[in-house]
Amino acid sequence: MQAEGKALVLIGDGLGDWPIEALGDRTPLEAAQRPNMNRLAAEGESGIMDPIAPGIRAGSDTAHLAMLGYDPFEVYTGRGPFEAAGIGLDVQQGDVAFRCNFATVDENMVVLDRRAGRIESGTDQLVAALNGMQIGDVTVLIKESVAHRAGMVLRGPGLGAKVTDADPHAEGAKVPTVEGSDEPSRKTARIINEFVRRSYDILKEHPVNKKREQEGLKPANIILPRGAGYAPHLGSFQGRTGLSAACIVEVGLVKGIGRYLSMDVIDVPGATGGLDTDVMAIGRAVIDALQTHDFVLCNVKGPDVAGHDNNPSAKVEIIERMDQMLGMILENIPPKTYIVLTGDHSTPCPYMDHSGDPVPVVIWGPGVRTDSVTDFGERSAARGGMGRIRGKDILNILTGFLKVQEKFGA
Amino acid sequence: MQAEGKALVLIGDGLGDWPIEALGDRTPLEAAQRPNMNRLAAEGESGIMDPIAPGIRAGSDTAHLAMLGYDPFEVYTGRGPFEAAGIGLDVQQGDVAFRCNFATVDENMVVLDRRAGRIESGTDQLVAALNGMQIGDVTVLIKESVAHRAGMVLRGPGLGAKVTDADPHAEGAKVPTVEGSDEPSRKTARIINEFVRRSYDILKEHPVNKKREQEGLKPANIILPRGAGYAPHLGSFQGRTGLSAACIVEVGLVKGIGRYLSMDVIDVPGATGGLDTDVMAIGRAVIDALQTHDFVLCNVKGPDVAGHDNNPSAKVEIIERMDQMLGMILENIPPKTYIVLTGDHSTPCPYMDHSGDPVPVVIWGPGVRTDSVTDFGERSAARGGMGRIRGKDILNILTGFLKVQEKFGA
Repeated sequence: MQAEGKALVLIGDGLGDWPIEALGDRTPLEAAQRPNMNRLAAEGESGIMDPIAPGIRAGSDTAHLAMLGYDPFEVYTGRGPFEAAGIGLDVQQGDVAFRCNFATVDENMVVLDRRAGRIESGTDQLVAALNGMQIGDVTVLIKESVAHRAGMVLRGPGLGAKVTDADPHAEGAKVPTVEGSDEPSRKTARIINEFVRRSYDILKEHPVNKKREQEGLKPANIILPRGAGYAPHLGSFQGRTGLSAACIVEVGLVKGIGRYLSMDVIDVPGATGGLDTDVMAIGRAVIDALQTHDFVLCNVKGPDVAGHDNNPSAKVEIIERMDQMLGMILENIPPKTYIVLTGDHSTPCPYMDHSGDPVPVVIWGPGVRTDSVTDFGERSAARGGMGRIRGKDILNILTGFLKVQEKFGA
Repeated sequence: MQAEGKALVLIGDGLGDWPIEALGDRTPLEAAQRPNMNRLAAEGESGIMDPIAPGIRAGSDTAHLAMLGYDPFEVYTGRGPFEAAGIGLDVQQGDVAFRCNFATVDENMVVLDRRAGRIESGTDQLVAALNGMQIGDVTVLIKESVAHRAGMVLRGPGLGAKVTDADPHAEGAKVPTVEGSDEPSRKTARIINEFVRRSYDILKEHPVNKKREQEGLKPANIILPRGAGYAPHLGSFQGRTGLSAACIVEVGLVKGIGRYLSMDVIDVPGATGGLDTDVMAIGRAVIDALQTHDFVLCNVKGPDVAGHDNNPSAKVEIIERMDQMLGMILENIPPKTYIVLTGDHSTPCPYMDHSGDPVPVVIWGPGVRTDSVTDFGERSAARGGMGRIRGKDILNILTGFLKVQEKFGA
């Protein structure tokens, strides 16, 4: 089936909020100048959306998985695989993924510093000495992330993810022996224990560490993997939906989901993931991607940042900038483009974290049943024609409009 | 996680109703003077709630289980365990619980009266002669309830609940031999058959019965267990949510659920469960409990009684008295208290039983997205910002606001 039209899912990360006294009992969204968002509401159909289910505090990862059509209760076993994919590791379905720290140990394997003196540079050279290591029939892939962090995957037959951490989570403690709770996981444990030992043998002699020691810095002389997660078999987004898809997002974890689903993950220079991000650069990337893809997922991280910081005025401002971005997009979209505008969860400023509140949602495009709502806000959307839906409904609604969804029944 | 605030879930049992001509086509709730309920609606967020799912006729037990966060389709196998806990039996998870009648049999075990002449007193002495009986490795716990009724649990290893009743459900019939449909249940059946025989041997000689016979009354000379239910493993409410909890309810079955979940079940003198109940005494108990607990569940039974009796004016009156109770509570709550006001199901007067209609619900407290609804009623609530939720959403919404819910994802 060839898509009849295009779809853009535009996410303000952590967009939903609470009425705030300093904003005249309006939410930051309600207080923002948002003529283009309001245009979508006036011409489209509004509703509220529970990313997972009413009251459930969604993560960005579980919420995006839901909006991309997966049931996170079924497929989500932890952030590990998506985080590893997010830093650019080639995570394949069936791998076991880990978060890792570079750490400093003494010759008795006692952890002196869990963050290797918060090492700032050279970890790319250190991982190069370890990446691709073969242990039996298992290949170890490892890649540096920011500071002392790294991601790792094990690839090979018969691996499990029910293993303890190699990280003692305390300094002055010995590196623990990893244990697995079933047969595949005991295999993983043996590989990890061997890898940790070898990482020490290799890293303690590495020139980067010799130089650090000369400079009085703690050597990053061991890798401590933790938080094992099994990479679930999700297939590719295009294979499942028939839609060629691009992912223009600022959150590493969500980038990881895009890579994991074989979407085209487009990095935008100037997209910082902060309040200073270049929304117009993101908007131009969206316009370009809509020329070459059926489906574009775009996430602007700023509203979430402002929510976590309890900074309502910053949240108003980034929403206003998103609105300008939307205005530019609206002038440059292909004919028959559907736009869903929503959040992946609420991050109310007073709550300073993801809450269980629903988010407003609007769908705009040919054939949509325009309702009486004329502005885009948490409470106006609740009066919309869509009622209260869930994150997992979004993809079905869009594949229906784009005519790439098989009829269920006859 | 320490709760940031308190929560009160205030239930009018069977609160929902239908428009009634004699009330000017208003429901009893809509017809009631209810300034305090209306205040919650004006300051809070309204919606409608299906206790289980749209159209499903909920019981008080299944509805309360849902609102306390359990899926009744998973955990509910019958009222037995909760009813036994409700009369004060120490039901433990894994027990098999029964409802029992004291009955009158002749020497051939033919049932002469299934209710032992509706015996009014002395059953406490009769159960004392049976309680704690040991049969093999199984202990029998039994406690009297009102009139000819009693509750019983079997406690021991390897018991099942798939057994037939020891009650022939007809007079003139012999006490049937209980049968089990799997190996654990066959063990239960053997214990019950032995218990029933021994109950006859002991009770027929009991002074209470000797005296009844002298007075020309039917002796309560046997116990007939029926309605076996396996006590599900639910854990404690506090263990699962982190919230210390009190249960101030009038319905025995709901009291049983509270005890079963190790909530503090507070008995209120003057709370009769009828239309004559002392709502202000209940209100004072709620105010006290909110000082010492994070979470208080309160249920007033009266609206359900009036619904079953098809007595709209009595329903209006008990709702008005609940509203006065709410007014007192509102003047005496700790700061940062969330209130959910709703029903556990609808008991429309013309229907005279629990119907499948949703109930109105309002949530009130800091951060709630106030909507345009200004009165609390079945039809006004349907226009509220919450839309249509389910009973099981209530606890998630509250644990989100109280910040005791783990984020699902990152």
